[in-house]
Amino acid sequence: MIEAQETELMGSLKLTSQILRYVTNYLQDHGFLQMLPVMLGRSTDPLGPDPNSSILKTIEVEYLGTTMRTMNSMILHKQVAVRDVGRIFILSPNIRLEKADRKASGRHLFEFTQADFEIPYGKMKDVFSLMEGLLVGLTSHIGAEGIRKVDGEPFAFKGPFRVYSTHELEERYGEDWEYKASMDHDQPFWATCHRREFYDREDLENPGHYLNYDLIYPFGVGEALSGAEREYDYQRIRTRMGKDKLAMDIYASYLEEARKGFVPSAGGGFGVERLTRFLRGAAHIGDVQLFRRVPGEVPGI
Amino acid sequence: MIEAQETELMGSLKLTSQILRYVTNYLQDHGFLQMLPVMLGRSTDPLGPDPNSSILKTIEVEYLGTTMRTMNSMILHKQVAVRDVGRIFILSPNIRLEKADRKASGRHLFEFTQADFEIPYGKMKDVFSLMEGLLVGLTSHIGAEGIRKVDGEPFAFKGPFRVYSTHELEERYGEDWEYKASMDHDQPFWATCHRREFYDREDLENPGHYLNYDLIYPFGVGEALSGAEREYDYQRIRTRMGKDKLAMDIYASYLEEARKGFVPSAGGGFGVERLTRFLRGAAHIGDVQLFRRVPGEVPGI
Repeated sequence: MIEAQETELMGSLKLTSQILRYVTNYLQDHGFLQMLPVMLGRSTDPLGPDPNSSILKTIEVEYLGTTMRTMNSMILHKQVAVRDVGRIFILSPNIRLEKADRKASGRHLFEFTQADFEIPYGKMKDVFSLMEGLLVGLTSHIGAEGIRKVDGEPFAFKGPFRVYSTHELEERYGEDWEYKASMDHDQPFWATCHRREFYDREDLENPGHYLNYDLIYPFGVGEALSGAEREYDYQRIRTRMGKDKLAMDIYASYLEEARKGFVPSAGGGFGVERLTRFLRGAAHIGDVQLFRRVPGEVPGI
Repeated sequence: MIEAQETELMGSLKLTSQILRYVTNYLQDHGFLQMLPVMLGRSTDPLGPDPNSSILKTIEVEYLGTTMRTMNSMILHKQVAVRDVGRIFILSPNIRLEKADRKASGRHLFEFTQADFEIPYGKMKDVFSLMEGLLVGLTSHIGAEGIRKVDGEPFAFKGPFRVYSTHELEERYGEDWEYKASMDHDQPFWATCHRREFYDREDLENPGHYLNYDLIYPFGVGEALSGAEREYDYQRIRTRMGKDKLAMDIYASYLEEARKGFVPSAGGGFGVERLTRFLRGAAHIGDVQLFRRVPGEVPGI
């Protein structure tokens, strides 16, 4: 490594450390109980109606007669935890064996950590204000050193962030709105109403519309957080899973929990490496990692 | 779940959350940079000269032409990080597919999180005082509610802890000294000099003796932390790996890093669930988890 790169990397590692501490204290101060991550489960996030569109495979292992899978995300476990425990968050390492061409996005890793939280009886607006408070507090806390400059000043989050529906965004920027809309903003914005995984709640007063949201970083960086109000009713969950033609055997243990009854909730997860990359203005997300985990690159160790 | 059990579990989950926050702040205050965990690596901890003695298998996956393995521990990555970054710690989830009979130990899980740290140019005594400060500070910080009672008072760590060599302990308690010695103490104690993994440094002035240590909880609870000063010299590492007859191809990426040169270091890792279990006085480590991960038990989800 040449020295300038080394210094860049050290700055990113220090920022990641600061973020982890800040997020831990912020969420605990806001009444969230921090849980340990789950790495292996009988059920895991299908990652969309068609998982093959985004990842090559989910790792499966036979262990003492049970098939266990590594975590694509802890969403299914969060629905159990939010019912049994209340407000919870997890610094959750996820494994997603992305296709090699995802390297080009600059923001995909084949393993990463997301700060994943869930609020019982929460609504979209609760997640918005929690995240706005977290991000605004973070940039006022961490100082200016090594933070991306905008018009000569270190970037600082300023809330509340604007809210759009994906329909508005498509109308204005076309179907591939994310990059263009991101370039067109200088603060993050919320994009609501995506057609995606079964656990994101459909707006029953407005079928075909969804009570979910992404937070999008500006300057072309793109997705920061993904979240939703959740489908919590057993029959609704069954219906939505059926529509997505999911292999039901993988979700048997999840459906057992759903049948016991979930509570309504809202939550989200934001990638820690993505937050570091955004604040550092790094060209590629792999540049903020000591152990690079970029699809299509052979890792060092 | 009946209500009393639920309350017991909630108490354990709250304590785990407190521990995570305390450890994060304590180690960051002591100059440790917090890194994100690695879950997949080309090389991982062999877990002893004979890994089959403790676990059934390490999960391997082919990803874009490279064989990746889930982390038995991050020790090999820590040696890289301590050289390139300095003082580091990781809240590191480890997967160890233990044999079903390990359930009986009361302290084994097939996945768990360890707080894993490493000190460049550190010595055994640096780890001892760091951990004593951490544990003594923890029990004075968390209050008395739900903590195991000893003679009617909530348990509090009191350092410094006593230090024995395994040779002394074997002499006094026999070859299976751990449980008996643990029962015979009312504070944790250090046990030094174990013959185990290649990366624990051999005392060259005293061959056949090792500069490593376990911290043992009292009252029969047993192992809390495992650590060592490290073998950092490339030739010594080769020699030690050769003696252990390790499959060298698995460690090629690690040996490449070792050849670049490691720095001397000392460190350790302590299981978060084990610390919760000890402080709560729980009968089994699985009792402190919402998602039980006990060898030989089919997990719920």
